[in-house]
Amino acid sequence: MSEGPSLHVLILAGGVGTRFWPASTPARPKQLLALGSERPLIVDTVERALKVAERDRIRILTGAHLVHPFQAALPQLPDSAYWVEPRARGTGPVLAWAAHQVAAQDPDGVLISLHADHLIDPDEALSALLPRAAALASDEDLLLTLAVPPDRPETGYGWIRPGEPIRDEAGLRAWRVGAFVEKPDLPTAQRYLREGYLWNSGIFVWSARRFLEEVHRHAPEIAPHLAHLDRGEVEAYFQEVSPISVDEAVLERSGRVGTVEATFRWDDVGSWASLSRARSGDEAGNVTVGETHAVQAGGNVVWAEDGPVVLFGVDDLVVVRTGGITVVARKDRSPDWKELVARLPERLREGGFGSADASGDDA
Amino acid sequence: MSEGPSLHVLILAGGVGTRFWPASTPARPKQLLALGSERPLIVDTVERALKVAERDRIRILTGAHLVHPFQAALPQLPDSAYWVEPRARGTGPVLAWAAHQVAAQDPDGVLISLHADHLIDPDEALSALLPRAAALASDEDLLLTLAVPPDRPETGYGWIRPGEPIRDEAGLRAWRVGAFVEKPDLPTAQRYLREGYLWNSGIFVWSARRFLEEVHRHAPEIAPHLAHLDRGEVEAYFQEVSPISVDEAVLERSGRVGTVEATFRWDDVGSWASLSRARSGDEAGNVTVGETHAVQAGGNVVWAEDGPVVLFGVDDLVVVRTGGITVVARKDRSPDWKELVARLPERLREGGFGSADASGDDA
Repeated sequence: MSEGPSLHVLILAGGVGTRFWPASTPARPKQLLALGSERPLIVDTVERALKVAERDRIRILTGAHLVHPFQAALPQLPDSAYWVEPRARGTGPVLAWAAHQVAAQDPDGVLISLHADHLIDPDEALSALLPRAAALASDEDLLLTLAVPPDRPETGYGWIRPGEPIRDEAGLRAWRVGAFVEKPDLPTAQRYLREGYLWNSGIFVWSARRFLEEVHRHAPEIAPHLAHLDRGEVEAYFQEVSPISVDEAVLERSGRVGTVEATFRWDDVGSWASLSRARSGDEAGNVTVGETHAVQAGGNVVWAEDGPVVLFGVDDLVVVRTGGITVVARKDRSPDWKELVARLPERLREGGFGSADASGDDA
Repeated sequence: MSEGPSLHVLILAGGVGTRFWPASTPARPKQLLALGSERPLIVDTVERALKVAERDRIRILTGAHLVHPFQAALPQLPDSAYWVEPRARGTGPVLAWAAHQVAAQDPDGVLISLHADHLIDPDEALSALLPRAAALASDEDLLLTLAVPPDRPETGYGWIRPGEPIRDEAGLRAWRVGAFVEKPDLPTAQRYLREGYLWNSGIFVWSARRFLEEVHRHAPEIAPHLAHLDRGEVEAYFQEVSPISVDEAVLERSGRVGTVEATFRWDDVGSWASLSRARSGDEAGNVTVGETHAVQAGGNVVWAEDGPVVLFGVDDLVVVRTGGITVVARKDRSPDWKELVARLPERLREGGFGSADASGDDA
């Protein structure tokens, strides 16, 4: 596929977010939902990966309980594609484990880390960019992130301040990272937008070897425990390692970090409201999944998995019907979804309630 | 029960309104819904009737397709209680038919006409008032309506301008009717409220004989066809008679019409929004039927017949989940429900869609 370093794609597919409850549940997390297209997000992500890497170099990093549903959704991948974390410890430990496994077989291999639940459009822009970013990571010996030119003062994302330019070619602009900044408040986000900051997509590109060196240099939460992996003691490694994100453990501490400008539209689909951006709606701006009849209604997000939904005279709502549960919320409250779910009885939180599978009228 | 004339209660229970769709459908009209209490409205109405009339003097006037569901809901009534209209022709023809049948057996009997789908509170006030109103109708030889003191400028009701007083006793105030007026616009309703107009409840009290005389005198749409009834030709009567309301056919034309002030709270439960008045809500003003979780939400009407409903941050909505259909509307649009239903595909309008009966978690 590329003439540069060999590419290995790691798909981060753990996490049991509640932000799309009741459509998402512990047994059916967001990446198994068809939020971006008519297919589950994980299927979109794997198809994306197959455009840049050999089939046997694509790995799904996830928990044991999700292997079977992923296998059912992904007949194109062999069973060896699943690397099962014995316990969730954040992105730092799992990416160090994955780098260790790849480095053992392919010391010069470049890792590309994708999230299983992001939207990217068009895929072709990503698959054109990644080999060039991988070559850059190898040539410059850098840990690279992909950074997205923002179109709004988004408070839900981390941002990156670009530093010294590394490349400025057609289709490949890259900088040293000036700073990673956490999710800002609105006035700060507005300033970032004016001052040319970029969104941190969480898509990473780096050689297995360079990443492990930076882990050893900067991440005492992880590095001392890597010896377990040399002895094949995966369970012990995950038991002893501290939970930490790769951003905190490595990227924010290392001096060898760069960022490459994304050439595609990107969304982390972090809430029901984000579907209004991620999917095209009707002429009144209603984004709907399943049979919906919107009468004098606009700007709504509807997930109708359990019979038709009728809207009348309502604007800017989220309406979800699935698994025997009906949820009606103001769309601008969707960032507070975890707070909502925490306030509900446990039996509702687990979903799969009542009559979901009894309704066969819409798929 | 009373020492005055014998009382016969006619319960008008036809009509296949769409104003509570999808909870109400042609096969399950509003009077079969538990809108006023934990029992269907028709059951509340029959219990009310049993407080003023003998069991065998209570008649349900309805269409053939509703007899079976009513029988199931009303074990306290014999099968002879059902008088089945061969076709719906409005209240004029059906009340003339009923008066003709009662008069044949009990010429001095007084008819009390109740709607099967109204709310009355307390029932005891009605059952105390009706025998006195019946005596007044007999003594004065008048057709009486019950008129409700208004508490708001309601545009959804017909109003009555009281004329010359007939009685002004404790618990019995009555007037000649000055005028019946149609559903007014808001400024007119505000004027009516200031000027002492009353709401027309549609509850009627009159002797069978006097009513038939007034039909013969004023209602050419009905009177010539009554001869069919003398020969037992009910089908022919309903085929030839013109569709017309009793208000238009008789009350607005006759000079022998009076009105009695109601001593109870009354609501015709004409829309989802009216449930906010008819039933007591939670501390945030949410009126709910079935399992509902309202989080930072107020003033909503929820009908959750098919699994739990969760509200989050929304106000003044109607949310209905029943028969496999989910409806979300602004509460102030509920008077326009017929318009909504007319715009939907036929298969939705008929209800009973999908998985309603599969969910047994709430009753």
